[in-house]
Amino acid sequence: MRKLLMFLFCFTVLNSCKEEEIITSEKQKTDYTQFVNPFIGTSKMGHVFPGATAPFGMVQLSPQTNFEVMFKDDASYNPETYKYCAGYQHRDSTIIGFAHTNFSGTGHADLGDFLIMPTVGSLVLDPLKTADGNKGFYSTFSHTNEEAMPGYYKVDLDSYGIKAEFTASERVGFHQYSFPKSDNAHIILDMVYNVYHHNNKNIWTFLRVENDSTITGYRQTKGWARDKKVFFAAKFSKPFKSYGHKKYDDVIYDGFYRRFKQDENFPEMAGKNLRAYFNFDTDDGEKIKIKFALSNVSSAGAMKNLEAEIPHWNFNKTYEETSYKWNEELYKIEVETLTENQKTTFYTAMYHTNLSPIIYEDVDGQYRGLDQNIYTSNGFTNYTVFSLWDTYRALHPLFNITQPNRNNDMIKSMLAHHDESVHNMLPIWSHYANENWCMIGYHATSVIADAMIKNVGDFDYERALEASVNTASVRYFDGLGDYIDYKYVPDDKSHSSVSKTLEYAYNDWCIAQMAKAVGHTSKEKDFKKRSEYYINVYDPSIGFMRPKLSDGTFRKNFDPMDTHGQGFIEGNAWNYGLYVPQNIEKMVDIMGGKERFSQRLDSLFTMEIEEKYIENHEDITRDGIIGNYVHGNEPGHHIPYLYNWTGHPEKTQSRVRMIMDSMYASTVEGLCGNDDAGQMSAWYIFSSLGFYPVTPGSPYYALGSPIVKNAKIHLENGKTLTIATKNQSKDNVYVRSVSINGKVLDGILLSHQDIMNGGEIVFEMSNNYK
Amino acid sequence: MRKLLMFLFCFTVLNSCKEEEIITSEKQKTDYTQFVNPFIGTSKMGHVFPGATAPFGMVQLSPQTNFEVMFKDDASYNPETYKYCAGYQHRDSTIIGFAHTNFSGTGHADLGDFLIMPTVGSLVLDPLKTADGNKGFYSTFSHTNEEAMPGYYKVDLDSYGIKAEFTASERVGFHQYSFPKSDNAHIILDMVYNVYHHNNKNIWTFLRVENDSTITGYRQTKGWARDKKVFFAAKFSKPFKSYGHKKYDDVIYDGFYRRFKQDENFPEMAGKNLRAYFNFDTDDGEKIKIKFALSNVSSAGAMKNLEAEIPHWNFNKTYEETSYKWNEELYKIEVETLTENQKTTFYTAMYHTNLSPIIYEDVDGQYRGLDQNIYTSNGFTNYTVFSLWDTYRALHPLFNITQPNRNNDMIKSMLAHHDESVHNMLPIWSHYANENWCMIGYHATSVIADAMIKNVGDFDYERALEASVNTASVRYFDGLGDYIDYKYVPDDKSHSSVSKTLEYAYNDWCIAQMAKAVGHTSKEKDFKKRSEYYINVYDPSIGFMRPKLSDGTFRKNFDPMDTHGQGFIEGNAWNYGLYVPQNIEKMVDIMGGKERFSQRLDSLFTMEIEEKYIENHEDITRDGIIGNYVHGNEPGHHIPYLYNWTGHPEKTQSRVRMIMDSMYASTVEGLCGNDDAGQMSAWYIFSSLGFYPVTPGSPYYALGSPIVKNAKIHLENGKTLTIATKNQSKDNVYVRSVSINGKVLDGILLSHQDIMNGGEIVFEMSNNYK
Repeated sequence: MRKLLMFLFCFTVLNSCKEEEIITSEKQKTDYTQFVNPFIGTSKMGHVFPGATAPFGMVQLSPQTNFEVMFKDDASYNPETYKYCAGYQHRDSTIIGFAHTNFSGTGHADLGDFLIMPTVGSLVLDPLKTADGNKGFYSTFSHTNEEAMPGYYKVDLDSYGIKAEFTASERVGFHQYSFPKSDNAHIILDMVYNVYHHNNKNIWTFLRVENDSTITGYRQTKGWARDKKVFFAAKFSKPFKSYGHKKYDDVIYDGFYRRFKQDENFPEMAGKNLRAYFNFDTDDGEKIKIKFALSNVSSAGAMKNLEAEIPHWNFNKTYEETSYKWNEELYKIEVETLTENQKTTFYTAMYHTNLSPIIYEDVDGQYRGLDQNIYTSNGFTNYTVFSLWDTYRALHPLFNITQPNRNNDMIKSMLAHHDESVHNMLPIWSHYANENWCMIGYHATSVIADAMIKNVGDFDYERALEASVNTASVRYFDGLGDYIDYKYVPDDKSHSSVSKTLEYAYNDWCIAQMAKAVGHTSKEKDFKKRSEYYINVYDPSIGFMRPKLSDGTFRKNFDPMDTHGQGFIEGNAWNYGLYVPQNIEKMVDIMGGKERFSQRLDSLFTMEIEEKYIENHEDITRDGIIGNYVHGNEPGHHIPYLYNWTGHPEKTQSRVRMIMDSMYASTVEGLCGNDDAGQMSAWYIFSSLGFYPVTPGSPYYALGSPIVKNAKIHLENGKTLTIATKNQSKDNVYVRSVSINGKVLDGILLSHQDIMNGGEIVFEMSNNYK
Repeated sequence: MRKLLMFLFCFTVLNSCKEEEIITSEKQKTDYTQFVNPFIGTSKMGHVFPGATAPFGMVQLSPQTNFEVMFKDDASYNPETYKYCAGYQHRDSTIIGFAHTNFSGTGHADLGDFLIMPTVGSLVLDPLKTADGNKGFYSTFSHTNEEAMPGYYKVDLDSYGIKAEFTASERVGFHQYSFPKSDNAHIILDMVYNVYHHNNKNIWTFLRVENDSTITGYRQTKGWARDKKVFFAAKFSKPFKSYGHKKYDDVIYDGFYRRFKQDENFPEMAGKNLRAYFNFDTDDGEKIKIKFALSNVSSAGAMKNLEAEIPHWNFNKTYEETSYKWNEELYKIEVETLTENQKTTFYTAMYHTNLSPIIYEDVDGQYRGLDQNIYTSNGFTNYTVFSLWDTYRALHPLFNITQPNRNNDMIKSMLAHHDESVHNMLPIWSHYANENWCMIGYHATSVIADAMIKNVGDFDYERALEASVNTASVRYFDGLGDYIDYKYVPDDKSHSSVSKTLEYAYNDWCIAQMAKAVGHTSKEKDFKKRSEYYINVYDPSIGFMRPKLSDGTFRKNFDPMDTHGQGFIEGNAWNYGLYVPQNIEKMVDIMGGKERFSQRLDSLFTMEIEEKYIENHEDITRDGIIGNYVHGNEPGHHIPYLYNWTGHPEKTQSRVRMIMDSMYASTVEGLCGNDDAGQMSAWYIFSSLGFYPVTPGSPYYALGSPIVKNAKIHLENGKTLTIATKNQSKDNVYVRSVSINGKVLDGILLSHQDIMNGGEIVFEMSNNYK
């Protein structure tokens, strides 16, 4: 049913297509968007959204279903709200509107800017329920009348008989509402709504009605970011007959604003919280369209974006252009799979890895810096939404293969962030011209080192090294001064002391790699030394990484199963304690050698974790756990590949196939934890191709076991790498041999050069490993 | 004592002077700043401030004494707060700090951005009292240790033994604090403080410590303006040894900001309300200086302003440059007076007329528009703070003589305001890129017509006419649609119906004058017609302007003595009802002819007004009343001159001399009501020279009785007009004759051309009029 509709839709689109290059493009002969299902992961903890967006688009326009949650006004922790980080839960049957910004897969909620909702009948401005207990402006909907594909989302709003369709360019959301006949139709612009409403996030809202069909304005919110500013300019395809607004401020002191009536047909509105409405008469089936452009600079910038990106009113044309862009991204890896479901899983993972970071500049290159001043990008496109503790692991390494130009721009954006930062720091979590300090380490150094070591991009190496050293020298940052002084983070001085020690050490190794590449010997030596500090939190008497106090003794009370307060963050010592990616051999060695380490991994994957260790934990849920191994969160993502260093690569091979089969699926529950801005999906893409970047910053990938039958990677250097398998099947999870362009590969590692050279890598599969 | 100190100070200044043109300037031989006493009007209702500022400066840096008032947190009306519209009351003996923005003389409170306070001893961040009841950071002070002159303010902060001195360029405040010896000295930056604190005005504050002696940031406030944004960049002459901040937010949701300590020596601070502090060791007498630059664009703009205007650390040099600029402005009218006090009154009035509007753009011409987008002024300097209901009367007409270039720029600023306004309206009250809608009418039309009719400036006449017509066509504005439909504002549809009818009619006459000047006959006719609508609210049966209902009948309950709810605003029918400046002859005629009108004026000036009519009225107080005539507020400012139209110019002459003598003085109580951005002072300047612009938009001034002995007006066209008197004395208030360049003037009017031609006007004075 969905496919048929898709076909009909595409047919319409192609008919309306005027641009020859689109029609004739060789690669667009296969429509890979058909293999993407944006609903995958929209249930439970995937935290992804089904709405319409262009690749890496600033506008990510998606339905918001969390109306019951958003009205809990208490500041206390509410575990239900956590499910709504992307505003949508597939279980829901009501929609309160369509918001223009959404995070994809993040482990914390924010955004939801500029909620639009079309209604008919008596005007209702309360989303949930009115003061007298009647129904709010939300609508019921059914999944049978809902469609999503890359760049397109559609739903029937059953409460109103309105068909709502959406597409988007990078900076403009395109709404198309088909109304019933009504002399009382409305489009509501709710500027109160925020994703994850717990505590009011609004700082200020501002709205101007420029003429009978154009509005502009902005909203500032605090929340995850301290002071996030988003500006907009929007045009309606039909003039509204009247309009107005209502304020929802607790206390307003508005001087002379009360002197004459300013709530109806008065074109200027401002306040902490306001909802505006625009009234129409509609014929049956009449379409009202809205082009809603964003900017992070100004409403003038948003208007420029609007006029540059969508100067027309042809909804299908915009969809078709965006669909074309999606196909360009998806085509970069062509795969054949054992099952159709695997193909959907793969291309949806590809889709999820192209949703963030997002483009964060206007069409003229202007963007807002961390100091809230306006800059112009010079020689790069500026990006934001760097969830780096997650994405340095596999997403940015994937970009070094599929998106080297964008990754180069992302690194330049990180360097700009450093320059604008009052701390002289690279981003920890770059969030709309704010640093939200989420999670630990300074993993931008990993992204930079990985690109440097793989010769990706033309960013300034010296400047990148300097920015990294600056970042690693900010003593007031999160225990870093103590780390430098004690050579570990003392547990009595700082939370998550072991995690921080391990990650700083890895990051310092990354900086040493940069220094080496640049030829800065003394810095290389300094940071090489720091990269060995992980050893200082290893307790050989128990064989675990363990919190150490400032007096040099290990903390007495310590439970390596527990994820709470044991010196780790979002992981227990069993998982997080295996984090020495910069020197896996040494880690294996100090932990008892290969066999013992292999057994330790076996235990990890097979032991039972008691309920008490994971209850009340947002990021670790049953769905993402195998034994005591947690795939639903990032700290362990490299662990299945560690068997390679124990002389048991076959255990890696069977484990990764098992994880791909059990932790990913082509269903709405197909993500076992937060997609985390694409990291969870990037893990799948690498693993399904048969290798994984266990140590970003090194040019090597650890071998795994491909799940695809074969794959073609179209590289930006013009070359193509084919990954082929022999004897591939569901049961043949073991790799008997790997050959590169006919030459048998020796060892457990694949080099980046092997990939970038193109040619063919052949995996010979088997159902046994001997 | 004050003069001696002044002399010594100037001596020091001149010694440090390096710029030859300052030394040798002919006109700077007389230091007119010595005749200015910025304390005049700082008691009771003058609403002026004694702080340091350059002429029309964006920075107006002044002590804030209202600490008891500012902590009343209830939103209810508190009459005490009204006295603190400029942050300072002379009766006070404590100072809580020095703020960089202040309104001069306005009838409503706002601003007070970026309060700085130096202290020594234990750090206290509460202004009034600490949580445990100890003294806050305020200091006691004494007027004997306080000095103020144009561009300079000094006070000893007795609680700390700190001498505080201030000067300013247009966009930069220059602080100089002489500390005692201390290892515990502080400079507090209070971003919570607002003038007139009733209800918290803060929207958001943001502060960055760029290095050990540089800070940047911004504050957004709601209040009189909806969303006022002020940015800053500041440099300290000495690095601080440490710093920190405290937040005063009720509810903060700050995500991950709590993860590591961010309140001390952490260079990024943000929140709704915060106070920061900077710590120093000081030697005895050690000076710590701060250059504190403002911008309304960005902190980068503020830094540009800082570097362009005060690139050095020479406090005296900046003072001397600003003092020179003041002398340039004051020198424009050189007067000899009967008494020294009159000279001080005159030059302080001159000073007060050069404090607003303020320059509202960065040194590079960038400024914030009403739509909150950033513009660059092209061919003009952008201004804000247009309190037009006040200032169109005499301040802008005065500018047409003393400040034609600035007035031209102000008109261009108003036209830019119109273009940026979503209403397509000229400013009513232009307030830092906001329209605050204060008071009635659209008197920008008067300012424009007056400049047009007097050939001032090179602004675009056609565009000015179009902007004026647009403004006069906004039906939703303050009863204007009803005014157009009914040909008066019906009292049952709108408050202040008579005042609005009278003022719209006058404004429409101004537009008709513009249309005539441009040659647009039909518009001239249309607005000429509208200018006659005043007649529709005149009730001949009682001889008063009177509220009329939409059914065409006059309102039954009507008390022409009452200022409350009688169809007028800030005035009663006795005063406000005489407002037909565009056709005074006709007004006199319909009100019973010359003799009756003259008697009516006599009654106005001599009758008793009962207490009940003025109690609880902010703008009308005993101090500003003569009989029932209210000089302390604007609506009657033209009334003393109306005798001219009754055949009794001698009554105008005696009345204006009496008003100058009784309503103005060279004391702290020298203003009888709000100076209203210079209007009260402009009335004095015109009147003291012997004429007054009763009808701005006409090229004529009504004659009065000069109080000066003689005056030289140095015109920007290079000419000089001398106003001389014969037989001038305190008692010789009557004008026997006026001659212009030897030719006796016939009639009651002086023309603008008579002034601009230069030459000599001689008033022959007498103690009787026959």
